[in-house]
Order: sequence, then structure tokens, then C-alpha cells
Amino acid sequence: MGKKQVVVGVDIGGTNTVFGFVDRDGHILASDKIKTSNYEEPEVFVAALYEKIMVAMPKIGYDIEIIGFGIGAPMGNINKGTIEYPADLPWKGIIPLAEIFKKHTNLPVIVTNDANAAAVGEMIYGGARGMKNFVVITLGTGLGSGFVVDGKLVYGHDGFAGEIGHTAIRPGESNRDCGCGRKGCLETYVSATGIKRTVLKILADKLEPSELRKFSFEELDAKIIHDAAKNGDAIAIRAFEHTGRMLGFKLADVVATTNPEAIFLFGGLALAEDLIFEPTKRYMEQNLLSIYKDKVKLLLSELSTQNAAVLGASSLIWSEKEQ
Amino acid sequence: MGKKQVVVGVDIGGTNTVFGFVDRDGHILASDKIKTSNYEEPEVFVAALYEKIMVAMPKIGYDIEIIGFGIGAPMGNINKGTIEYPADLPWKGIIPLAEIFKKHTNLPVIVTNDANAAAVGEMIYGGARGMKNFVVITLGTGLGSGFVVDGKLVYGHDGFAGEIGHTAIRPGESNRDCGCGRKGCLETYVSATGIKRTVLKILADKLEPSELRKFSFEELDAKIIHDAAKNGDAIAIRAFEHTGRMLGFKLADVVATTNPEAIFLFGGLALAEDLIFEPTKRYMEQNLLSIYKDKVKLLLSELSTQNAAVLGASSLIWSEKEQ
Repeated sequence: MGKKQVVVGVDIGGTNTVFGFVDRDGHILASDKIKTSNYEEPEVFVAALYEKIMVAMPKIGYDIEIIGFGIGAPMGNINKGTIEYPADLPWKGIIPLAEIFKKHTNLPVIVTNDANAAAVGEMIYGGARGMKNFVVITLGTGLGSGFVVDGKLVYGHDGFAGEIGHTAIRPGESNRDCGCGRKGCLETYVSATGIKRTVLKILADKLEPSELRKFSFEELDAKIIHDAAKNGDAIAIRAFEHTGRMLGFKLADVVATTNPEAIFLFGGLALAEDLIFEPTKRYMEQNLLSIYKDKVKLLLSELSTQNAAVLGASSLIWSEKEQ
Repeated sequence: MGKKQVVVGVDIGGTNTVFGFVDRDGHILASDKIKTSNYEEPEVFVAALYEKIMVAMPKIGYDIEIIGFGIGAPMGNINKGTIEYPADLPWKGIIPLAEIFKKHTNLPVIVTNDANAAAVGEMIYGGARGMKNFVVITLGTGLGSGFVVDGKLVYGHDGFAGEIGHTAIRPGESNRDCGCGRKGCLETYVSATGIKRTVLKILADKLEPSELRKFSFEELDAKIIHDAAKNGDAIAIRAFEHTGRMLGFKLADVVATTNPEAIFLFGGLALAEDLIFEPTKRYMEQNLLSIYKDKVKLLLSELSTQNAAVLGASSLIWSEKEQ
């Protein structure tokens, strides 16, 4: 009997890079991660990642054969195998990721946007099974999006479709600098770092007591804000309300553009459930034209935070192999 | 020899409804129009339109055979043959347009969004020939949009994709009421009526002399503003600048969503050429993430104002026939 074939699915995020060995049926046989932000050089990062993958492989306990690497990354470009000007990664400019990977392996390497990979994962293994038109919004360090139209992922002319995290919240100047070099992008409000910035803004404006006043900007994270909100902390609740307001506003634009059946929220902030879903849904509906009202489902991703992009990225290799 | 087969392409606009007899090669053998705004009842409108079509037919001079009616209309829904809650038409609620048409004919009747029809027209007969990913923005009484992804028009889950005219320009309240019942929609700024409203706002704010101070709101139209701007009228030029600012801002969102090769502007305002293209392009580029900069073409539609939606609507029948 031959070895079991697997694809290594890799999800490069601003904080962590997660990988998994994925079989044809979408089972993740093993997974591990490395800290993206520890690596200033992409070459060193890839070498460390590749080594970690090789170390993890024997732990599966039986013989597997890797048939390729599917990689999801912010600003990942499927046409060129590059990551270009990522706002949330430690590297600048155009990073020829597939090329760097090829120094370590002769197997196929496919790079795509991490949110696009998550959308494919949702379609094949998650809540979007059977759906032809849907959108996945990934809420991590930044905000990513993947659009599926008529059963196919939208890549666009240059392979860069689905970057609504970098659409501005209003015309004209905003106070919030974005990692992309511009100001007022959606992800400066709606992401793990966005809600943290919102908390500081509200703490500056309001006099209400809050346990969040104890934390420095560096200490604060989405989990602390989430816990505070669950405990009834007024500032934390306001922060979720504002985050939902900004997200709901932009999701109304998404609906008016591609008229999806559902929008899936994925990632850390989405796990706050009603705290984020209720205001997001309310503001989205408020901003919708009547023809769309009460028709678009706002759903929690059915894939765990770690799995969606790993599964999605791996499926790119499976689908290429089978073409 | 058999009669020449034609499709009647119909473009229902807020002011006029234009129709044409279109042959398989996209030649419009004859065309005419009726005034949409004269008809308070959709049944009376359809009866008048149908009669006008029947009267125009013999004028072509040789025998033709109508094989169907392709209709583009604001909020037109291809799945249901309806127009639903149109903001810019004299009729309210859900209008079963195909059903009303069927009282006059047994031939196939297909209804779609007028901007979607224009996008199909641009793809088959205009500047988008050979393009797989592009967007058409129609600037008439309102603002319509049609998205083509991977060579196919995006209809979305409910058949209502492409209504960016009804996305809000910013979160929170705007002063401008929209015909759709909400406030601050893009078309309240970017359309023939939008620029007129902008002129009045600037006339209210500024003391600069302007020939536009002579016109009442009712007298003013896009052509008068265009002519004034060409003559160097400071208020008219400011109005185009502001219109381009709002459109460019939203087009940056369009680029970040579907990453098109080109965006075509179509309709009355687009004919102002540099006056609208220059500020729109400038503000669009200003709002684009670096990966998109200087890559997306902003082009004038290659179809005349009358033709695009008529041709596009007619092509729906041809393509159904040939499937």
C-alpha cells in the first residue's frame, strides 16, 4: 500500500503562522505553528517554517507523502506566488514567497490571500457547503475578505480581489494610521488591533469606570476586551458596538456589490459571538436597501480559527492536482 | 428567404425609456423612446411602450420578426422578471414587469438591472471586448453599476448584485435624502441629479459669482453645469471636483473588492470627459492600496448613451436562444 498523500496547508498571519498536514478528505493529521513576528527576513522565516514542518511530519505516526504546499498570506497573489506590500507582516515590498519556498522543495507551492484561502475552506469543508454566493470576513490582526461568486473564488484581473480591510471608512482624513501607509482603513477599526484602538479612544473620551483602564496598550488584546464586555464593562461593550457599527456599514456595501446569500465572520473577534454579531447585523440592516433587507445571513464560520485558512490553502493544491 | 430576426432591447430610465430593434450582430435597425415619468401606472406605461414599439416596427422598411424583449431597468431582477422598489422610477413597490408585458405578447421577456444590461452591452459590443473582469458605472438620473467577474455578469444570490449607487458615502447621518428612502447614498452625489444638488450646496456656501445663480433647481441640469464648467465657471468646476471626489472614493472600494482591469463610465455625466474623469481618477488613486495603484483603467464607455443598455438587454434574449 502506498503512503498516504497529504498537502501542507499554511496560514501566514500577522502574529502566528499555522500549518497542518491535510488529507484529501480535509482531515488535519497534525498541525503546529511558529511566530511570524519573530522573523524580520522572509528567507529566515521560510527556512524556520520548513524545518518546523519537517520536524512535525514524523510525529503523525505513519508514513505520509507531501504532494505540495498551499499557502494563505495577507496580500498573497496566486498569479505570481508573491506577497505584495503586506500591511500586517514584518516584511516590506514584494516578497517572492513561492520562489523562496522552492529553495527547500521541488513540490508545487501555491500562494494566495489568507482570506481567500479561508473562503475556499468554508466552501469545501464549512458552513458554505452548497452555497454559490457568499463572503468570508477574517478578523485577525487585520481584516481580510474572500468573495465567492457563482461557486468560484473571485481573484480579479491582477489576483488581488477581496481586500475590503483596506477600504476607507469615509472620504477625507481619518485619525487612524493604517499599516498600509494610508489612513482610516476598515481594519483600523474592525480587527483585533482595531478594537483595541477603539477602547483607547473611548477611554480617552468617557469618564465611566472600566477594568480596561488597568491595561497598557501593549497588554490589551481582543480576549481581555471580550472578557470585560461579558462582565458588563461599559467601555468594552461600547467598543464592540462601535466595531459592529463600522463592520455593519461596510458589509452593507458588500451586499450591494455582490448580493451574497451569507457573510461568514471568522477569527478571534468573531468568537465574541453576540457582542459582535448583534451590532454588526443591526448596522448592516440599517444601511441596506430594502431589496436586500432581512435576506442576507450573517454567520459564524463553521471552521475553527486555526483550520479554515489551512484547509482552504491546502485545497488549492488538491484542486490543481485533480484538474 | 425568412424574415430578419430581431430582439427589442428596452432601457427603462428615470426620465426616458429607450428601445431599439437589434439584430444578431448588434446593429440597431431603428430606435425610439417614450417619457417614463409621464406614466404613473406601470400597466399604462407598458401599454404605451408596446404600442410605440409596434408603430416603430414598420418604419424599418423591410420585414422583421421579433423573437423577444430584453429589458433593462433600475432594480430589475432577472430571476423574477420584476422591478423592486425602484428609487428613480415613478412606480412603487414590486412591479411584475415581465408579467405585465406578457399581456401584450407571447414572446420571451427578460428583465434585468439597466446597469447590468449596459455591462453586457459593453462586453459584447463595446470597450470591454476581450476583458474578463470589469465594472460599468452608469451615470443617469441615478447611479447604476454592473460587475463582470471572470467573463460573467455578477447577479448574486437574489439577482440584485451591483447596486453601488445605494451604498452610503459615510457611516452616520448625511443631509441628502435618497429616493430609496435612506440618506447619503452615492447617487445623491454622483448622478445628474447629484451634481445639481452639489451645485446648490456650493452656491449656498460660497460667494463666488457664477452663471449658475440664474437657474432654479428645476431648470438646472447636468448639461448646463457641464457647459458652465467648460466656460470656466468656478462653482461648476467645484461641483465636478466634488462629484469626482465622491465617485473616486467609492471606486477605490470597487477595486479592492473585485480588482477589475477597467472601470467604464457611461451616461450623461461621463460625457463631461476630463471634468469628471480627472478628479475621479485622482481621488480613486489616492484611496487605493499600493498593490492596485496605476493599474486600473478608467474609461469612457464605447457605446453611446442610448445604445449600451439597449444592446445589453437585447443580448440577454440572444444568449438564451442560443443556449
